[in-house]
Amino acid sequence: MRPLDRSDALRLLGSISLGRLVFTQHALPAVRPVNHILDGEDIVIRLSDGAALASLTAPADGPETVVAYEADVIDPDHHLGWSVVVTGYARLVDDPAELERYKRLLRPWVTCSMAAALRIRPELVTGFQLTDTIQCTATALPD
Amino acid sequence: MRPLDRSDALRLLGSISLGRLVFTQHALPAVRPVNHILDGEDIVIRLSDGAALASLTAPADGPETVVAYEADVIDPDHHLGWSVVVTGYARLVDDPAELERYKRLLRPWVTCSMAAALRIRPELVTGFQLTDTIQCTATALPD
Repeated sequence: MRPLDRSDALRLLGSISLGRLVFTQHALPAVRPVNHILDGEDIVIRLSDGAALASLTAPADGPETVVAYEADVIDPDHHLGWSVVVTGYARLVDDPAELERYKRLLRPWVTCSMAAALRIRPELVTGFQLTDTIQCTATALPD
Repeated sequence: MRPLDRSDALRLLGSISLGRLVFTQHALPAVRPVNHILDGEDIVIRLSDGAALASLTAPADGPETVVAYEADVIDPDHHLGWSVVVTGYARLVDDPAELERYKRLLRPWVTCSMAAALRIRPELVTGFQLTDTIQCTATALPD
């Protein structure tokens, strides 16, 4: 299990289009699969119009919300792959030109209704790559 | 996007071995990919020995922690698949016989070191299945 540096982690995250938005809803942990693109270092996700996602967004001039975002490609059979977790402030995209651009870039695979976009500015980026399965044989479980 | 009932959602979750544990760490949303099995309706996950996962677990005789658990199989190209989110109380498995059993059942694909097991008792189970891509053509985006 090799740790990924920030640039490798963001590059891998940008190589796929599906991730999971993690937030707090009514003081409980909540998670939704969403579609994303990477715009520079920012993660921009498409919001469906559900109350769950809307509830986490603050107006652009209001307080920002801290969210986590996770994406992975892991082959459970061969124990290979990677996972990246980004933690940062999320804010609604409210600039009309930006919103139009993101609507073209973000493919609406879950919902086809009009959607908002949320930008996550990564403060903390962590990730790992599973590169070696042979270690598992060498370090046997105590049982 | 068809909602899944509880039994279908848990059946789908039990059909795969990878999911994402969602919890609160230092008052911030946190997420880790983990390995799971379904034991009855309980989700049992393998914990690596990292501080992140250890910090969310309470002793079995102490207060329980609320977590969310998400698993999905989504084909981003064909916009088909499913996602299930379980919310419930998590508690360390501390019965030695149970722990031995889970260690045999849970394949240590991320770490090969000794690990603990965490049991999540589902209070709330939600899920959806993406069954129809034709709706996306009928309901075009406003842009």
